[in-house]
Amino acid sequence: MLKRIISGVVLAPLVLSLFWWGPDWGIESLLAVVVALAVWEFTDITQRISGSSQQRAWSRGLAVAVSLGAFWGWVRCPVEHHLLIFLTGFFVVAFAHTFLGKDHRESAHEVGWSMFAALYIAGTLACVGMIVHGSQPKGTERALCMAILWTVWLGDTGAYFVGKAIGKHKLAPRLSPKKTIEGSIGGLLGAVLGIVFARTAFDLPGTWTWMLVFALASGVLEQAGDLFESMLKRAANVKDSGKLIPGHGGILDRLDGIFFAAPLFVVYPLTYL
Amino acid sequence: MLKRIISGVVLAPLVLSLFWWGPDWGIESLLAVVVALAVWEFTDITQRISGSSQQRAWSRGLAVAVSLGAFWGWVRCPVEHHLLIFLTGFFVVAFAHTFLGKDHRESAHEVGWSMFAALYIAGTLACVGMIVHGSQPKGTERALCMAILWTVWLGDTGAYFVGKAIGKHKLAPRLSPKKTIEGSIGGLLGAVLGIVFARTAFDLPGTWTWMLVFALASGVLEQAGDLFESMLKRAANVKDSGKLIPGHGGILDRLDGIFFAAPLFVVYPLTYL
Repeated sequence: MLKRIISGVVLAPLVLSLFWWGPDWGIESLLAVVVALAVWEFTDITQRISGSSQQRAWSRGLAVAVSLGAFWGWVRCPVEHHLLIFLTGFFVVAFAHTFLGKDHRESAHEVGWSMFAALYIAGTLACVGMIVHGSQPKGTERALCMAILWTVWLGDTGAYFVGKAIGKHKLAPRLSPKKTIEGSIGGLLGAVLGIVFARTAFDLPGTWTWMLVFALASGVLEQAGDLFESMLKRAANVKDSGKLIPGHGGILDRLDGIFFAAPLFVVYPLTYL
Repeated sequence: MLKRIISGVVLAPLVLSLFWWGPDWGIESLLAVVVALAVWEFTDITQRISGSSQQRAWSRGLAVAVSLGAFWGWVRCPVEHHLLIFLTGFFVVAFAHTFLGKDHRESAHEVGWSMFAALYIAGTLACVGMIVHGSQPKGTERALCMAILWTVWLGDTGAYFVGKAIGKHKLAPRLSPKKTIEGSIGGLLGAVLGIVFARTAFDLPGTWTWMLVFALASGVLEQAGDLFESMLKRAANVKDSGKLIPGHGGILDRLDGIFFAAPLFVVYPLTYL
Protein backbone atom coordinates (compact mmCIF):
# COMPACT_ATOMS: atom_id res chain seq x y z
CA MET A 1 0.00 0.00 0.00
CA LEU A 2 2.79 2.41 0.95
CA LYS A 3 4.72 1.43 -2.18
CA ARG A 4 1.57 2.02 -4.21
CA ILE A 5 1.14 5.55 -2.85
CA ILE A 6 4.82 6.44 -3.30
CA SER A 7 4.87 5.19 -6.90
CA GLY A 8 1.73 7.19 -7.62
CA VAL A 9 3.05 10.36 -6.00
CA VAL A 10 6.29 10.14 -7.98
CA LEU A 11 4.90 9.07 -11.36
CA ALA A 12 1.65 11.01 -11.61
CA PRO A 13 3.13 14.53 -11.47
CA LEU A 14 5.80 13.58 -14.02
CA VAL A 15 3.24 12.24 -16.47
CA LEU A 16 0.83 15.14 -15.91
CA SER A 17 3.61 17.70 -16.45
CA LEU A 18 4.68 16.05 -19.67
CA PHE A 19 1.12 15.97 -21.01
CA TRP A 20 0.54 19.64 -20.13
CA TRP A 21 3.88 21.35 -20.76
CA GLY A 22 5.85 18.80 -22.77
CA PRO A 23 6.44 18.84 -26.54
CA ASP A 24 4.31 16.66 -28.86
CA TRP A 25 7.25 14.38 -29.60
CA GLY A 26 7.86 13.89 -25.88
CA ILE A 27 4.31 12.71 -25.28
CA GLU A 28 4.37 10.51 -28.37
CA SER A 29 7.67 8.98 -27.28
CA LEU A 30 6.30 8.19 -23.83
CA LEU A 31 3.21 6.64 -25.42
CA ALA A 32 5.40 4.58 -27.75
CA VAL A 33 7.45 3.26 -24.83
CA VAL A 34 4.23 2.41 -23.02
CA VAL A 35 2.90 0.60 -26.13
CA ALA A 36 6.07 -1.49 -26.33
CA LEU A 37 6.07 -2.43 -22.63
CA ALA A 38 2.34 -3.10 -22.51
CA VAL A 39 2.36 -5.31 -25.63
CA TRP A 40 5.31 -7.21 -24.19
CA GLU A 41 3.36 -7.85 -20.97
CA PHE A 42 0.15 -8.58 -22.84
CA THR A 43 1.72 -11.21 -25.08
CA ASP A 44 3.10 -12.98 -22.04
CA ILE A 45 -0.46 -13.26 -20.76
CA THR A 46 -1.94 -14.36 -24.09
CA GLN A 47 0.78 -16.94 -24.70
CA ARG A 48 -0.10 -18.44 -21.34
CA ILE A 49 -3.77 -18.51 -22.33
CA SER A 50 -3.20 -20.45 -25.53
CA GLY A 51 -0.20 -22.40 -24.29
CA SER A 52 2.40 -21.22 -26.80
CA SER A 53 5.83 -22.58 -26.16
CA GLN A 54 7.89 -22.77 -29.33
CA GLN A 55 7.36 -19.31 -30.78
CA ARG A 56 7.41 -17.34 -27.55
CA ALA A 57 10.23 -14.86 -27.96
CA TRP A 58 10.19 -13.92 -31.63
CA SER A 59 6.43 -13.79 -31.76
CA ARG A 60 6.35 -11.37 -28.84
CA GLY A 61 9.06 -9.26 -30.43
CA LEU A 62 7.16 -9.16 -33.70
CA ALA A 63 3.94 -8.17 -31.91
CA VAL A 64 5.78 -5.29 -30.23
CA ALA A 65 7.34 -4.17 -33.53
CA VAL A 66 4.06 -4.29 -35.46
CA SER A 67 2.17 -2.54 -32.66
CA LEU A 68 4.77 0.23 -32.57
CA GLY A 69 4.60 0.58 -36.35
CA ALA A 70 0.82 0.76 -36.26
CA PHE A 71 0.88 3.26 -33.39
CA TRP A 72 3.29 5.52 -35.25
CA GLY A 73 1.28 5.19 -38.46
CA TRP A 74 -2.04 5.93 -36.79
CA VAL A 75 -0.70 9.02 -35.05
CA ARG A 76 1.30 10.45 -37.95
CA CYS A 77 -0.18 9.25 -41.25
CA PRO A 78 -3.27 10.68 -42.98
CA VAL A 79 -6.47 9.11 -41.62
CA GLU A 80 -7.41 7.57 -44.97
CA HIS A 81 -4.57 5.11 -44.47
CA HIS A 82 -5.58 3.95 -41.00
CA LEU A 83 -7.21 0.74 -42.14
CA LEU A 84 -4.39 -0.02 -44.60
CA ILE A 85 -1.82 0.47 -41.84
CA PHE A 86 -3.57 -2.17 -39.76
CA LEU A 87 -3.87 -4.54 -42.72
CA THR A 88 -0.17 -4.13 -43.53
CA GLY A 89 0.72 -5.09 -39.98
CA PHE A 90 -1.63 -8.05 -40.24
CA PHE A 91 -0.02 -9.27 -43.47
CA VAL A 92 3.46 -9.04 -41.97
CA VAL A 93 2.46 -11.02 -38.90
CA ALA A 94 0.38 -13.54 -40.88
CA PHE A 95 3.18 -14.28 -43.34
CA ALA A 96 5.88 -14.47 -40.68
CA HIS A 97 3.89 -17.11 -38.80
CA THR A 98 2.74 -18.91 -41.94
CA PHE A 99 6.27 -19.38 -43.21
CA LEU A 100 8.37 -19.43 -40.04
CA GLY A 101 6.00 -20.99 -37.54
CA LYS A 102 6.82 -24.48 -36.26
CA ASP A 103 3.36 -25.39 -35.04
CA HIS A 104 0.24 -24.44 -37.03
CA ARG A 105 -2.05 -24.20 -34.04
CA GLU A 106 0.38 -21.99 -32.18
CA SER A 107 0.93 -19.86 -35.28
CA ALA A 108 -2.78 -19.28 -35.73
CA HIS A 109 -3.14 -18.21 -32.10
CA GLU A 110 -0.10 -15.96 -32.26
CA VAL A 111 -1.37 -14.14 -35.34
CA GLY A 112 -4.70 -13.55 -33.62
CA TRP A 113 -3.18 -12.33 -30.36
CA SER A 114 -0.69 -10.06 -32.12
CA MET A 115 -3.42 -8.21 -33.97
CA PHE A 116 -5.49 -8.11 -30.82
CA ALA A 117 -2.55 -6.50 -28.98
CA ALA A 118 -2.19 -3.93 -31.73
CA LEU A 119 -5.86 -2.99 -31.50
CA TYR A 120 -6.23 -3.17 -27.72
CA ILE A 121 -3.03 -1.32 -26.83
CA ALA A 122 -1.61 0.55 -29.84
CA GLY A 123 -5.06 1.40 -31.24
CA THR A 124 -6.37 2.89 -28.03
CA LEU A 125 -3.18 4.79 -27.17
CA ALA A 126 -3.00 6.03 -30.77
CA CYS A 127 -6.25 7.82 -29.97
CA VAL A 128 -4.40 9.78 -27.29
CA GLY A 129 -1.60 10.41 -29.79
CA MET A 130 -4.12 11.63 -32.35
CA ILE A 131 -5.59 14.06 -29.80
CA VAL A 132 -2.11 15.38 -28.96
CA HIS A 133 -1.07 15.59 -32.56
CA GLY A 134 -3.90 17.96 -33.29
CA SER A 135 -6.82 16.20 -34.89
CA GLN A 136 -8.67 18.43 -32.41
CA PRO A 137 -9.43 22.17 -32.56
CA LYS A 138 -6.27 24.13 -31.80
CA GLY A 139 -5.73 24.88 -28.17
CA THR A 140 -7.90 22.13 -26.71
CA GLU A 141 -5.55 19.16 -27.35
CA ARG A 142 -3.80 19.32 -24.02
CA ALA A 143 -6.99 20.11 -22.09
CA LEU A 144 -8.44 16.91 -23.51
CA CYS A 145 -5.36 15.00 -22.36
CA MET A 146 -5.83 16.39 -18.88
CA ALA A 147 -9.50 15.35 -19.01
CA ILE A 148 -8.50 11.78 -19.90
CA LEU A 149 -5.80 11.51 -17.25
CA TRP A 150 -7.80 13.13 -14.44
CA THR A 151 -11.05 11.25 -15.09
CA VAL A 152 -9.26 7.92 -15.26
CA TRP A 153 -6.96 8.51 -12.30
CA LEU A 154 -9.54 10.05 -10.00
CA GLY A 155 -11.92 7.31 -11.16
CA ASP A 156 -9.39 4.66 -10.11
CA THR A 157 -8.66 6.42 -6.85
CA GLY A 158 -12.32 6.98 -6.02
CA ALA A 159 -13.13 3.33 -6.66
CA TYR A 160 -10.19 2.20 -4.53
CA PHE A 161 -10.84 4.31 -1.46
CA VAL A 162 -14.65 4.24 -1.46
CA GLY A 163 -14.54 0.47 -1.96
CA LYS A 164 -12.03 0.14 0.87
CA ALA A 165 -14.07 2.33 3.21
CA ILE A 166 -17.67 1.22 2.69
CA GLY A 167 -17.55 -1.55 0.07
CA LYS A 168 -19.97 -4.39 0.89
CA HIS A 169 -21.84 -5.70 -2.17
CA LYS A 170 -19.72 -7.63 -4.66
CA LEU A 171 -19.68 -6.22 -8.21
CA ALA A 172 -18.39 -9.15 -10.27
CA PRO A 173 -17.12 -11.90 -7.97
CA ARG A 174 -16.18 -14.25 -10.82
CA LEU A 175 -13.86 -11.67 -12.39
CA SER A 176 -12.48 -9.62 -9.56
CA PRO A 177 -13.65 -10.69 -6.10
CA LYS A 178 -12.46 -7.56 -4.31
CA LYS A 179 -14.48 -5.07 -6.36
CA THR A 180 -17.71 -3.78 -4.85
CA ILE A 181 -20.70 -1.88 -6.14
CA GLU A 182 -19.95 0.88 -3.64
CA GLY A 183 -16.42 1.15 -5.03
CA SER A 184 -17.76 1.26 -8.55
CA ILE A 185 -20.03 4.19 -7.67
CA GLY A 186 -17.08 5.88 -5.96
CA GLY A 187 -15.19 5.42 -9.25
CA LEU A 188 -17.92 7.16 -11.23
CA LEU A 189 -17.94 10.04 -8.75
CA GLY A 190 -14.16 10.25 -9.05
CA ALA A 191 -14.45 10.43 -12.84
CA VAL A 192 -16.96 13.28 -12.55
CA LEU A 193 -14.64 15.08 -10.14
CA GLY A 194 -11.81 14.58 -12.63
CA ILE A 195 -13.61 16.23 -15.50
CA VAL A 196 -14.83 19.06 -13.31
CA PHE A 197 -11.22 19.65 -12.34
CA ALA A 198 -10.11 19.52 -16.01
CA ARG A 199 -12.72 22.13 -16.85
CA THR A 200 -11.77 24.40 -14.00
CA ALA A 201 -8.00 24.14 -14.13
CA PHE A 202 -7.36 23.61 -17.84
CA ASP A 203 -10.26 25.41 -19.56
CA LEU A 204 -11.71 22.32 -21.20
CA PRO A 205 -14.53 23.70 -23.37
CA GLY A 206 -18.00 22.17 -23.55
CA THR A 207 -21.34 22.33 -21.76
CA TRP A 208 -21.75 20.87 -18.27
CA THR A 209 -24.27 18.32 -19.52
CA TRP A 210 -21.91 16.84 -22.10
CA MET A 211 -19.07 16.87 -19.66
CA LEU A 212 -21.03 14.84 -17.12
CA VAL A 213 -22.16 12.41 -19.81
CA PHE A 214 -18.53 11.93 -20.87
CA ALA A 215 -17.29 11.57 -17.31
CA LEU A 216 -19.87 8.89 -16.51
CA ALA A 217 -19.39 7.09 -19.83
CA SER A 218 -15.62 7.10 -19.46
CA GLY A 219 -15.99 5.90 -15.86
CA VAL A 220 -18.12 2.97 -17.00
CA LEU A 221 -15.72 2.13 -19.85
CA GLU A 222 -12.75 2.38 -17.54
CA GLN A 223 -14.23 -0.02 -15.01
CA ALA A 224 -15.36 -2.43 -17.70
CA GLY A 225 -11.85 -2.30 -19.19
CA ASP A 226 -10.48 -3.15 -15.77
CA LEU A 227 -12.78 -6.18 -15.53
CA PHE A 228 -11.86 -7.22 -19.08
CA GLU A 229 -8.20 -7.31 -18.10
CA SER A 230 -9.12 -9.25 -14.96
CA MET A 231 -10.76 -11.83 -17.20
CA LEU A 232 -7.61 -12.10 -19.33
CA LYS A 233 -5.45 -12.55 -16.25
CA ARG A 234 -7.80 -15.21 -14.90
CA ALA A 235 -7.74 -17.02 -18.23
CA ALA A 236 -3.95 -16.99 -18.04
CA ASN A 237 -3.90 -17.84 -14.36
CA VAL A 238 -1.73 -14.91 -13.31
CA LYS A 239 -2.36 -12.33 -10.59
CA ASP A 240 -0.56 -9.26 -11.92
CA SER A 241 0.24 -8.51 -15.54
CA GLY A 242 3.84 -7.83 -14.55
CA LYS A 243 5.83 -6.11 -11.83
CA LEU A 244 7.11 -3.01 -13.52
CA ILE A 245 5.60 -0.39 -11.20
CA PRO A 246 6.27 -1.05 -7.49
CA GLY A 247 2.98 -1.67 -5.69
CA HIS A 248 0.87 -1.32 -8.83
CA GLY A 249 1.66 -4.61 -10.59
CA GLY A 250 2.37 -4.40 -14.29
CA ILE A 251 1.87 -1.58 -16.73
CA LEU A 252 -1.30 -3.22 -18.05
CA ASP A 253 -2.79 -3.28 -14.55
CA ARG A 254 -2.26 0.45 -14.36
CA LEU A 255 -3.49 1.30 -17.86
CA ASP A 256 -6.40 -1.07 -18.43
CA GLY A 257 -8.77 1.81 -17.69
CA ILE A 258 -7.08 4.29 -20.04
CA PHE A 259 -7.19 1.82 -22.94
CA PHE A 260 -10.98 1.81 -22.90
CA ALA A 261 -11.70 5.36 -21.77
CA ALA A 262 -9.27 7.29 -23.99
CA PRO A 263 -10.87 6.60 -27.41
CA LEU A 264 -14.08 8.19 -26.14
CA PHE A 265 -12.38 11.56 -25.89
CA VAL A 266 -11.53 11.61 -29.60
CA VAL A 267 -15.20 12.40 -30.25
CA TYR A 268 -15.55 14.81 -27.33
CA PRO A 269 -14.91 17.93 -29.47
CA LEU A 270 -17.90 16.99 -31.66
CA THR A 271 -20.10 18.03 -28.76
CA TYR A 272 -19.09 21.68 -28.81
CA LEU A 273 -17.93 22.36 -32.36
CA MET B 1 -13.46 -30.94 -61.25
CA LEU B 2 -16.53 -30.70 -63.47
CA LYS B 3 -18.50 -29.21 -60.57
CA ARG B 4 -15.68 -26.74 -60.02
CA ILE B 5 -15.78 -25.54 -63.64
CA ILE B 6 -19.56 -25.31 -63.73
CA SER B 7 -19.69 -23.31 -60.50
CA GLY B 8 -17.04 -20.98 -61.86
CA VAL B 9 -18.76 -20.54 -65.23
CA VAL B 10 -22.06 -19.72 -63.53
CA LEU B 11 -20.80 -17.51 -60.71
CA ALA B 12 -17.97 -15.55 -62.32
CA PRO B 13 -20.04 -13.79 -65.01
CA LEU B 14 -22.69 -12.87 -62.45
CA VAL B 15 -20.16 -11.34 -60.09
CA LEU B 16 -18.27 -9.58 -62.89
CA SER B 17 -21.49 -8.09 -64.30
CA LEU B 18 -22.53 -6.80 -60.90
CA PHE B 19 -19.13 -5.18 -60.32
CA TRP B 20 -19.14 -3.53 -63.77
CA TRP B 21 -22.76 -2.58 -64.41
CA GLY B 22 -24.43 -2.93 -61.02
CA PRO B 23 -25.30 -0.07 -58.62
CA ASP B 24 -23.05 0.77 -55.66
CA TRP B 25 -25.59 -0.56 -53.19
CA GLY B 26 -25.78 -3.86 -55.08
CA ILE B 27 -22.04 -4.41 -54.83
CA GLU B 28 -21.98 -3.36 -51.19
CA SER B 29 -24.86 -5.69 -50.41
CA LEU B 30 -23.07 -8.62 -52.06
CA LEU B 31 -19.91 -7.78 -50.13
CA ALA B 32 -21.90 -7.61 -46.89
CA VAL B 33 -23.42 -11.03 -47.53
CA VAL B 34 -19.96 -12.39 -48.27
CA VAL B 35 -18.60 -10.85 -45.04
CA ALA B 36 -21.36 -12.52 -43.02
CA LEU B 37 -20.88 -15.95 -44.62
CA ALA B 38 -17.09 -15.79 -44.48
CA VAL B 39 -16.99 -14.73 -40.82
CA TRP B 40 -19.44 -17.52 -40.00
CA GLU B 41 -17.12 -20.07 -41.68
CA PHE B 42 -14.00 -18.50 -40.21
CA THR B 43 -15.29 -18.63 -36.64
CA ASP B 44 -16.06 -22.30 -37.04
CA ILE B 45 -12.39 -22.84 -37.94
CA THR B 46 -11.05 -20.67 -35.14
CA GLN B 47 -13.31 -22.23 -32.52
CA ARG B 48 -11.91 -25.60 -33.54
CA ILE B 49 -8.38 -24.21 -33.18
CA SER B 50 -8.86 -23.02 -29.62
CA GLY B 51 -11.36 -25.68 -28.65
CA SER B 52 -14.32 -23.48 -27.75
CA SER B 53 -17.38 -25.41 -26.78
CA GLN B 54 -19.64 -23.42 -24.47
CA GLN B 55 -19.87 -20.12 -26.29
CA ARG B 56 -20.00 -21.43 -29.83
CA ALA B 57 -23.21 -20.09 -31.28
CA TRP B 58 -23.66 -16.68 -29.70
CA SER B 59 -20.00 -15.83 -30.04
CA ARG B 60 -20.10 -16.62 -33.75
CA GLY B 61 -23.28 -14.60 -34.18
CA LEU B 62 -21.70 -11.67 -32.36
CA ALA B 63 -18.56 -11.88 -34.51
CA VAL B 64 -20.73 -11.75 -37.64
CA ALA B 65 -22.74 -8.81 -36.32
CA VAL B 66 -19.68 -6.81 -35.29
CA SER B 67 -17.89 -7.57 -38.57
CA LEU B 68 -20.91 -6.42 -40.54
CA GLY B 69 -21.13 -3.27 -38.46
CA ALA B 70 -17.45 -2.55 -38.97
CA PHE B 71 -17.71 -3.26 -42.71
CA TRP B 72 -20.63 -0.88 -43.08
CA GLY B 73 -18.88 1.77 -40.99
CA TRP B 74 -15.60 1.51 -42.88
CA VAL B 75 -17.32 1.80 -46.26
CA ARG B 76 -19.76 4.55 -45.37
CA CYS B 77 -18.38 6.65 -42.51
CA PRO B 78 -15.74 9.40 -42.79
CA VAL B 79 -12.22 7.95 -42.71
CA GLU B 80 -11.30 9.79 -39.51
CA HIS B 81 -13.62 7.40 -37.66
CA HIS B 82 -12.14 4.18 -39.02
CA LEU B 83 -10.07 3.40 -35.95
CA LEU B 84 -12.91 4.35 -33.59
CA ILE B 85 -15.28 2.06 -35.48
CA PHE B 86 -12.93 -0.85 -34.88
CA LEU B 87 -12.47 0.06 -31.23
CA THR B 88 -16.23 0.29 -30.72
CA GLY B 89 -16.63 -3.20 -32.13
CA PHE B 90 -13.82 -4.38 -29.88
CA PHE B 91 -15.46 -2.90 -26.76
CA VAL B 92 -18.80 -4.53 -27.59
CA VAL B 93 -17.19 -7.95 -28.06
CA ALA B 94 -14.89 -7.58 -25.05
CA PHE B 95 -17.71 -6.60 -22.70
CA ALA B 96 -20.09 -9.25 -23.99
CA HIS B 97 -17.53 -11.95 -23.28
CA THR B 98 -16.33 -10.41 -20.02
CA PHE B 99 -19.84 -10.32 -18.56
CA LEU B 100 -21.62 -13.19 -20.32
CA GLY B 101 -18.78 -15.66 -20.89
CA LYS B 102 -18.88 -18.89 -18.89
CA ASP B 103 -15.22 -19.81 -19.25
CA HIS B 104 -12.50 -17.15 -19.01
CA ARG B 105 -10.04 -18.91 -21.27
CA GLU B 106 -12.66 -19.44 -23.94
CA SER B 107 -13.85 -15.83 -23.61
CA ALA B 108 -10.33 -14.50 -24.09
CA HIS B 109 -9.87 -16.59 -27.22
CA GLU B 110 -13.26 -15.64 -28.61
CA VAL B 111 -12.60 -11.92 -28.21
CA GLY B 112 -9.29 -12.32 -30.02
CA TRP B 113 -10.72 -14.37 -32.87
CA SER B 114 -13.72 -12.06 -33.33
CA MET B 115 -11.52 -9.03 -33.82
CA PHE B 116 -9.23 -11.04 -36.05
CA ALA B 117 -12.25 -12.00 -38.20
CA ALA B 118 -13.29 -8.38 -38.43
CA LEU B 119 -9.85 -7.34 -39.62
CA TYR B 120 -9.12 -10.30 -41.88
CA ILE B 121 -12.50 -10.44 -43.61
CA ALA B 122 -14.47 -7.23 -43.04
CA GLY B 123 -11.37 -5.01 -43.13
CA THR B 124 -10.07 -6.35 -46.41
CA LEU B 125 -13.46 -6.42 -48.14
CA ALA B 126 -14.17 -2.93 -46.84
CA CYS B 127 -11.21 -1.88 -49.00
CA VAL B 128 -13.17 -3.10 -52.04
CA GLY B 129 -16.23 -1.27 -50.73
CA MET B 130 -14.17 1.90 -50.29
CA ILE B 131 -12.96 1.65 -53.88
CA VAL B 132 -16.53 1.20 -55.15
CA HIS B 133 -17.89 3.94 -52.96
CA GLY B 134 -15.58 6.42 -54.59
CA SER B 135 -12.54 7.12 -52.50
CA GLN B 136 -10.91 6.88 -55.94
CA PRO B 137 -10.85 9.40 -58.82
CA LYS B 138 -14.25 9.45 -60.52
CA GLY B 139 -14.59 6.96 -63.34
CA THR B 140 -11.87 4.56 -62.32
CA GLU B 141 -13.69 2.85 -59.41
CA ARG B 142 -15.14 0.05 -61.45
CA ALA B 143 -12.00 -0.42 -63.55
CA LEU B 144 -10.12 -0.99 -60.29
CA CYS B 145 -12.72 -3.58 -59.27
CA MET B 146 -12.20 -5.35 -62.57
CA ALA B 147 -8.43 -5.24 -62.01
CA ILE B 148 -8.86 -6.89 -58.58
CA LEU B 149 -11.22 -9.60 -59.80
CA TRP B 150 -9.31 -10.43 -62.98
CA THR B 151 -5.85 -10.50 -61.42
CA VAL B 152 -7.03 -12.70 -58.56
CA TRP B 153 -9.12 -15.05 -60.68
CA LEU B 154 -6.67 -15.43 -63.54
CA GLY B 155 -3.96 -15.78 -60.92
CA ASP B 156 -5.89 -18.64 -59.28
CA THR B 157 -6.63 -20.24 -62.63
CA GLY B 158 -3.06 -19.90 -63.90
CA ALA B 159 -1.69 -21.48 -60.74
CA TYR B 160 -4.18 -24.33 -60.94
CA PHE B 161 -3.64 -25.31 -64.56
CA VAL B 162 0.09 -24.69 -64.84
CA GLY B 163 0.61 -26.61 -61.59
CA LYS B 164 -1.55 -29.44 -62.88
CA ALA B 165 0.28 -29.58 -66.23
CA ILE B 166 3.96 -29.21 -65.35
CA GLY B 167 4.13 -28.87 -61.54
CA LYS B 168 7.04 -30.79 -60.04
CA HIS B 169 8.83 -28.90 -57.26
CA LYS B 170 6.89 -28.51 -54.04
CA LEU B 171 6.28 -24.92 -52.91
CA ALA B 172 5.35 -25.32 -49.23
CA PRO B 173 4.79 -29.00 -48.43
CA ARG B 174 4.04 -28.38 -44.74
CA LEU B 175 1.18 -26.02 -45.55
CA SER B 176 -0.30 -27.21 -48.81
CA PRO B 177 1.33 -30.34 -50.26
CA LYS B 178 -0.22 -30.03 -53.71
CA LYS B 179 1.15 -26.57 -54.51
CA THR B 180 4.22 -26.38 -56.73
CA ILE B 181 6.72 -23.69 -57.65
CA GLU B 182 5.70 -24.07 -61.29
CA GLY B 183 2.06 -23.49 -60.34
CA SER B 184 3.06 -20.45 -58.33
CA ILE B 185 4.85 -18.94 -61.34
CA GLY B 186 1.80 -19.75 -63.47
CA GLY B 187 -0.25 -17.83 -60.91
CA LEU B 188 1.94 -14.76 -61.24
CA LEU B 189 1.67 -14.91 -65.03
CA GLY B 190 -2.10 -15.23 -64.68
CA ALA B 191 -2.17 -12.13 -62.48
CA VAL B 192 -0.19 -10.18 -65.07
CA LEU B 193 -2.58 -11.37 -67.78
CA GLY B 194 -5.48 -10.25 -65.60
CA ILE B 195 -4.26 -6.70 -65.22
CA VAL B 196 -3.36 -6.47 -68.90
CA PHE B 197 -6.92 -7.51 -69.65
CA ALA B 198 -8.30 -4.94 -67.18
CA ARG B 199 -6.27 -2.23 -68.88
CA THR B 200 -7.36 -3.23 -72.37
CA ALA B 201 -11.02 -3.96 -71.76
CA PHE B 202 -11.87 -1.53 -68.96
CA ASP B 203 -9.51 1.41 -69.53
CA LEU B 204 -7.67 1.07 -66.21
CA PRO B 205 -5.35 4.09 -66.16
CA GLY B 206 -1.67 3.92 -65.16
CA THR B 207 1.72 3.21 -66.68
CA TRP B 208 2.67 -0.31 -67.77
CA THR B 209 5.49 -0.45 -65.24
CA TRP B 210 3.22 0.24 -62.26
CA MET B 211 0.64 -2.14 -63.59
CA LEU B 212 3.14 -4.98 -63.76
CA VAL B 213 4.43 -4.17 -60.28
CA PHE B 214 0.87 -4.29 -58.95
CA ALA B 215 0.02 -7.48 -60.78
CA LEU B 216 3.09 -9.27 -59.41
CA ALA B 217 2.66 -7.88 -55.91
CA SER B 218 -1.01 -8.83 -55.83
CA GLY B 219 -0.11 -12.28 -57.18
CA VAL B 220 2.38 -12.79 -54.37
CA LEU B 221 -0.07 -11.52 -51.73
CA GLU B 222 -2.82 -13.69 -53.12
CA GLN B 223 -0.73 -16.86 -52.96
CA ALA B 224 0.57 -16.00 -49.51
CA GLY B 225 -3.02 -15.41 -48.39
CA ASP B 226 -3.92 -18.82 -49.74
CA LEU B 227 -1.11 -20.44 -47.74
CA PHE B 228 -2.13 -18.48 -44.64
CA GLU B 229 -5.62 -19.92 -44.88
CA SER B 230 -4.12 -23.39 -45.41
CA MET B 231 -2.25 -22.93 -42.16
CA LEU B 232 -5.47 -21.99 -40.33
CA LYS B 233 -7.25 -25.03 -41.74
CA ARG B 234 -4.37 -27.28 -40.71
CA ALA B 235 -4.38 -25.79 -37.23
CA ALA B 236 -8.10 -26.59 -37.05
CA ASN B 237 -7.69 -29.97 -38.70
CA VAL B 238 -10.25 -29.37 -41.46
CA LYS B 239 -9.86 -29.81 -45.20
CA ASP B 240 -12.27 -27.24 -46.61
CA SER B 241 -13.49 -24.12 -44.85
CA GLY B 242 -17.05 -25.11 -45.71
CA LYS B 243 -19.08 -26.52 -48.58
CA LEU B 244 -21.01 -23.54 -49.81
CA ILE B 245 -19.79 -23.48 -53.42
CA PRO B 246 -20.02 -26.87 -55.19
CA GLY B 247 -16.53 -28.06 -56.14
CA HIS B 248 -14.79 -25.05 -54.60
CA GLY B 249 -15.15 -25.83 -50.90
CA GLY B 250 -16.19 -22.97 -48.67
CA ILE B 251 -16.40 -19.28 -49.33
CA LEU B 252 -13.11 -18.69 -47.49
CA ASP B 253 -11.35 -21.18 -49.78
CA ARG B 254 -12.51 -19.15 -52.74
CA LEU B 255 -11.75 -15.72 -51.30
CA ASP B 256 -8.52 -16.19 -49.37
CA GLY B 257 -6.64 -14.59 -52.26
CA ILE B 258 -8.95 -11.58 -52.55
CA PHE B 259 -8.63 -10.81 -48.84
CA PHE B 260 -4.92 -10.18 -49.18
CA ALA B 261 -4.74 -8.76 -52.70
CA ALA B 262 -7.65 -6.31 -52.59
CA PRO B 263 -6.26 -3.80 -50.05
CA LEU B 264 -3.29 -3.25 -52.34
CA PHE B 265 -5.52 -1.69 -54.97
CA VAL B 266 -6.68 1.05 -52.63
CA VAL B 267 -3.28 2.69 -53.15
CA TYR B 268 -3.13 1.97 -56.89
CA PRO B 269 -4.48 5.40 -57.90
CA LEU B 270 -1.55 7.05 -56.09
CA THR B 271 0.65 5.80 -58.90
CA TYR B 272 -0.99 7.89 -61.61
CA LEU B 273 -2.55 10.83 -59.79
